[in-house]
Amino acid sequence: MKKRVTLKQIAKELEVSVSTVSKALKNSEEISRDTKDKIQAFAKLYNYRPNNIALSLKNKKTKNIGVIIPDIVHHFFTTVFRGIEHYAGKRGYNVMICVSDESFEKEVLNMELLANGSIDGFIMSLSAETQEKNDYNHLNEVLNQGIPLVLFDRVTDDVLCDKVVINDEEIAYQAVFSMIKSGKRNIALVTTERYFNVSTNRAKGYEKALKRNGIEFNEKLILTLPYEKADDFVISKFFDENEIDAVLCVNEIFAIQCMDIVQRQGKKVPLDVGFIGFTNGILSKYSVPKLTTVAQHGERMGEMAAKLLIDRIENDLEGNFKTEVISATLIQRGSTIN
Amino acid sequence: MKKRVTLKQIAKELEVSVSTVSKALKNSEEISRDTKDKIQAFAKLYNYRPNNIALSLKNKKTKNIGVIIPDIVHHFFTTVFRGIEHYAGKRGYNVMICVSDESFEKEVLNMELLANGSIDGFIMSLSAETQEKNDYNHLNEVLNQGIPLVLFDRVTDDVLCDKVVINDEEIAYQAVFSMIKSGKRNIALVTTERYFNVSTNRAKGYEKALKRNGIEFNEKLILTLPYEKADDFVISKFFDENEIDAVLCVNEIFAIQCMDIVQRQGKKVPLDVGFIGFTNGILSKYSVPKLTTVAQHGERMGEMAAKLLIDRIENDLEGNFKTEVISATLIQRGSTIN
Repeated sequence: MKKRVTLKQIAKELEVSVSTVSKALKNSEEISRDTKDKIQAFAKLYNYRPNNIALSLKNKKTKNIGVIIPDIVHHFFTTVFRGIEHYAGKRGYNVMICVSDESFEKEVLNMELLANGSIDGFIMSLSAETQEKNDYNHLNEVLNQGIPLVLFDRVTDDVLCDKVVINDEEIAYQAVFSMIKSGKRNIALVTTERYFNVSTNRAKGYEKALKRNGIEFNEKLILTLPYEKADDFVISKFFDENEIDAVLCVNEIFAIQCMDIVQRQGKKVPLDVGFIGFTNGILSKYSVPKLTTVAQHGERMGEMAAKLLIDRIENDLEGNFKTEVISATLIQRGSTIN
Repeated sequence: MKKRVTLKQIAKELEVSVSTVSKALKNSEEISRDTKDKIQAFAKLYNYRPNNIALSLKNKKTKNIGVIIPDIVHHFFTTVFRGIEHYAGKRGYNVMICVSDESFEKEVLNMELLANGSIDGFIMSLSAETQEKNDYNHLNEVLNQGIPLVLFDRVTDDVLCDKVVINDEEIAYQAVFSMIKSGKRNIALVTTERYFNVSTNRAKGYEKALKRNGIEFNEKLILTLPYEKADDFVISKFFDENEIDAVLCVNEIFAIQCMDIVQRQGKKVPLDVGFIGFTNGILSKYSVPKLTTVAQHGERMGEMAAKLLIDRIENDLEGNFKTEVISATLIQRGSTIN
């Protein structure tokens, strides 16, 4: 069998990025003529075949689903995965996962890898870097080849496909509103970079709740943390320098970490500072006090994503893409009520 | 392209188990002549090719690794996976995971699925059911085809391959010994079914520590819980009915759950009851009190497994299998010391 070259190998050999190779092979106008010529010639010489995916898929169903998630450390993604697996299993499908590790390049390579490994369709949540770059070429390419794709949680309007999301803005509004109702006024938002669609939507809900209740929005009460390994010192400083009596955190780990630091500063939760986090994971149930959380119903989200995908695969559906919105639930616990 | 039948389809069509089909195709003596004839004829008719794995592998390296883990909810497996991924990434390999969900059949199907998807080798931790059945045909088959395999954590002596484990017996001994030294005498063990090799080894260390320190082993102080979703009531009853002043738990979730229940019963941790759990995860760091744990160094375990596998792949090594033992560390926190 003749050895086939991959996107990654072409990129390495010609010292360009994987994304440049991918675009050059699709004749993108973003890439210079020279570079395109060089890449296309190389790809031809080394027998690069991007579309063997489509070939194999037209001919048979594999009964396999490929899943790409940004990480497997956050409880939310693992519960979505469980939902996908349970539902897919019932309908006779196997599931393979790749982890993009929040990297654009890894996401592109994962797609290439899974597609080569004969799957009937993809379920994905976008990596941080993909959302930051705002580059969805690799997704649109797969869709153009007729491979169904369902996006969940971290989605984008730039890709036309089935999607499953939660009502992020609305539930953030409700969470902040519940804190205002209990007498809190200086409400902080602990979030990630804004290029995450979910963080943007949660921030919108947060701002709207303040505005509708006559509380002025204060930029200083927004703390933006890196998605992984937030620094205790930064958090500590934030709570030292600002008068804060309640906090909405866009994930569970941020909430647990902040609550721990605030309590070490001698403040009482929820009396001095109340906390609400997203993701109703196991951490929330065993923290002290137990954490009030937004249950995102990850398992249901996964089941829904798998259902949309398998229905599309089995019925050869085209167009008419749906966006299913799962209603999140606010679960009150000791971090907001005594 | 002619449609190829899979193990699963044969099993379904002939109304037998996947494992029967697999054994029949290997002419196993466990299967009756009639059944074997039927299955072999069917497989031939529908063009079943078990060995396309080996064919493709002999000819080229795919630079992909397949990983099969029992679940992605336990922190330990996700950290091992991170270790695999980071190390593999550095050496230019992609990683695909399948989750066996503790099921033997799923593990067999996952192997078939990944092998068809062109990988250079496997890294695996055995499912609960596989350890219970004690059936390792599918692993030995893959090895016979010349596909390298590395087992980690949940391993078996019945398969000759590279392995990575921790010093379970020794560290359990040390954990129990540390509790005895601090004056505890009625030490319970909260564990899973004995068919898990790790639980057996931890129980050995527990018993040895009691014996060497003149404490009689008491069957009643062993609580065996299902791996997933242990019942609060069962745990509560166990701590009500027995005089217990210290507990070793074989995982972090058991420890956190038991510690929560014991505290709700009005007992003080660690004064009345001390706790040590395995897996130094995020739960241990934010529980109250913080949990003393055995750090299994999952990330290092994953890196080691990936190193053994990739070295074997790239150097076409045969035989001379190694078992690397990672030394676990006991991390003392508030659940054992004031």
